[in-house]
Amino acid sequence: MTDRNSDQAHIPPTIAFAMGDPAGISPELTAILLNDGEVRAAARFVVFGDRRILAEGAQIAGLTPDVDFVSADSACEIGERPVFVDLAHLDPRDVKRGEATPEGGAFALENFRRALLMANEGRADAVFFTPFNKKAMRYVYPNYDDEIRYAADITGFKGAAREFNVLDNLWNCRVTSHIPLSAVAGAITIEGIVDELILADGCMREAGFVAPRIAVAGLNPHAGDGGNFGNEEIEIIEPAVRLAVQRGINAEGPYPADTVYLRARNGQFDGVLSMYHDQGQVAMKLMGFDRGVTMMGGFPFPICTPAHGTAYDIAGKGIANPGASKAAILLAARMAARNLGAKKRA
Amino acid sequence: MTDRNSDQAHIPPTIAFAMGDPAGISPELTAILLNDGEVRAAARFVVFGDRRILAEGAQIAGLTPDVDFVSADSACEIGERPVFVDLAHLDPRDVKRGEATPEGGAFALENFRRALLMANEGRADAVFFTPFNKKAMRYVYPNYDDEIRYAADITGFKGAAREFNVLDNLWNCRVTSHIPLSAVAGAITIEGIVDELILADGCMREAGFVAPRIAVAGLNPHAGDGGNFGNEEIEIIEPAVRLAVQRGINAEGPYPADTVYLRARNGQFDGVLSMYHDQGQVAMKLMGFDRGVTMMGGFPFPICTPAHGTAYDIAGKGIANPGASKAAILLAARMAARNLGAKKRA
Repeated sequence: MTDRNSDQAHIPPTIAFAMGDPAGISPELTAILLNDGEVRAAARFVVFGDRRILAEGAQIAGLTPDVDFVSADSACEIGERPVFVDLAHLDPRDVKRGEATPEGGAFALENFRRALLMANEGRADAVFFTPFNKKAMRYVYPNYDDEIRYAADITGFKGAAREFNVLDNLWNCRVTSHIPLSAVAGAITIEGIVDELILADGCMREAGFVAPRIAVAGLNPHAGDGGNFGNEEIEIIEPAVRLAVQRGINAEGPYPADTVYLRARNGQFDGVLSMYHDQGQVAMKLMGFDRGVTMMGGFPFPICTPAHGTAYDIAGKGIANPGASKAAILLAARMAARNLGAKKRA
Repeated sequence: MTDRNSDQAHIPPTIAFAMGDPAGISPELTAILLNDGEVRAAARFVVFGDRRILAEGAQIAGLTPDVDFVSADSACEIGERPVFVDLAHLDPRDVKRGEATPEGGAFALENFRRALLMANEGRADAVFFTPFNKKAMRYVYPNYDDEIRYAADITGFKGAAREFNVLDNLWNCRVTSHIPLSAVAGAITIEGIVDELILADGCMREAGFVAPRIAVAGLNPHAGDGGNFGNEEIEIIEPAVRLAVQRGINAEGPYPADTVYLRARNGQFDGVLSMYHDQGQVAMKLMGFDRGVTMMGGFPFPICTPAHGTAYDIAGKGIANPGASKAAILLAARMAARNLGAKKRA
C-alpha cells in the first residue's frame, strides 16, 4: 500500500477495519457497513479478513461487496472504494456458526493484529472491529484479557489506555474496572481520578465536544451524605475534581450515583466518570448500551467497536442490526479526522 | 373510634393515612387520593392531618373533600367514606410553601405517629403516608434517621424491617444500605442474604405473588467472573441462594448486576436482591422509580409511600401527579387484605 499522506485538502481519515468473530454476525455486519453510503463517505477503509467470509456475510445480507480486493502483501492505493486485504486464512467450511472455536479466534486475532499494526505505523488513523468472542481469542492467545491489553501487547504502547462507553451522545468511563468490590475504595486516588478526567476530556474533545461537561460520581450511597456514609468524597473525589477544574476540565461533582445518570440522560452532562464497574455498567446497560459504542482511548489512535457481542443466536439470519457498528465507525472517523486536522495544523 | 373488627365477609382493610409535609404536594395529593374512586374502593381510611390543610390541598386540586371529619379523640364508625381525624395542629398561615420548617415537620411527624400507633394497636391494617421532608422532621425529632427507624421507635418493634422499592411489578431490596462502599463486602453474610430473601419472599407473597422469582445480584463485576474479580459470589452468595432455595424460596443467582435489572425489566424476575445501595438505586431510578412505591416490610403491618419526595418546586400549582401515591395505597391495601384474610383463616 502506498502512503496515504498527501497535502490534499480535506483528506478523509483512514480506518483499519478488522473483521471479528466469523461465527457470529461479524461477516454480515462487515458486508453491510462496507456498502453503506454514510460509512463510505466518512472515511477510507482498509479491511482485514478473508474474502470468502466476506462473501458469505454479503450473501446473508443480500448485498454484493463493492470493494477492491488485494492480497496480504500487495501495495494498493487507498481510495473511495474500501480496500479489502484478503488474508486467505479462513475457509468458510471451517466456521461453526454460533460457536467459539480456535479457527474463529485465530481469524479475528490476526485481523485485529494487522489493523493495530497498520494504525500504529501511522498508515491508518483509527481502528474499528466487529465483535470478538473472548473465549475464541483465548484458544489462540491465552493471555487475551481484553482488547486494551492485546492492543498494548501488539503495539508496545506503555501509556494509560481506557475503555469508554458511548451511548448516543453520552460518554461513560470509570476509575476502577475489573477488580473485586472490596478493593474499589482503596484503589480510588486523587491522581487516578484526575488522570481519568484528563483522558476523558481529551477523547471527548477529539470526538467533537468543545468543553465536555463531565459529572463525577460519588463512591458511597448519596455520595457519602456529607461524610455520614464514607469520607472518600470529601478526602479524595472533591479535591480531584478541583484539581481537574484547575487544569481546564469542565468537571463537577461528586454527585450521588443513583441520580447522576438520570441527569446525564436529561442532557445535563456529556459524560460521567464512575468510580467502579457496576456503577456505570448498570446504568449504561439499562439505557440501552447495546446500541452503543465501546471506544478505547489513550492509544495514539482511537479504537472503536460496537458495544454488543457476537450475537451467535441470530448469526446468519440476515437480521443483524448494524446501528451500533455504524455509530462506532462514525465515531472513529470523527476522532481520526480531528487528529488528522490537528497534525496538519501542527 | 369503634373497633372495625366484625365477622362480616370481605371486610375491606383499614389504612391509617398520614398527611406528609405540608409545604410540598402532600395536601393536594391527599385531597386527590381521598376522592379517588379506585382508592376508596380498595380500603377504608382514617386520615391524620389538619382539616384546614386538607381544605387548601382540595382547593389547589379543584376538589371538594368527601370525608367525615372527626376530632382527635372522638369515636366514629369507619365506613366507606374516609374518616379524617382533624388534629387541628397546623394553621395554613404557618406553612411556608416550598420550605422545610419545624412547623411542617411537627405536623407530619404527629400524623405519622398517630397512624403508626393505630396500626400497631391492631386498629388499622396498613400505614400510608404522603411525602415527608427529612430536614423538617429532624427539627422536631433530631434522631429521625428514616421512616423505618422512627416507626421502630414509636412502635417498639425490635425485628428486622427493610425498605423495598416497587416499580410497576418489579421489587427491589438490598442486603446493605446506608454504609460506606468500603464496608459493603465485609457486611455481606450468608445469614444476611437468607434473611433478606425470606423477608422479601414473604412481603411479595403478601402483595399477591404466588412464588416470586427473586434474582440475587452478584457483588463484584461480572458477578466475580468465576473468582477472577472476588470470591464473595462463590463463598457467600451462592451458598446463601442454595439455602434459600432449600427453604422454598424461588431465588436464583448470583447474576451480574449490570444485566440482572435488564432481565428483570424484561419480565424474567419479579424481584432483585441487590448487595448494596447504588447497585439497586442506579437501576431503579433509571427505570423511573419516581413513579414507584417505597414499601417498608418486616413490621406487623405494611407501610407504603410514594418513592418521590415532597416536590417543593411544584407545590400548590395543581399539577402534582398522584400516580405513585395511588400505587402505594393500592399496594398497602392489597397486602393488608391478604393479612386480614390470613388472620381470618387462622
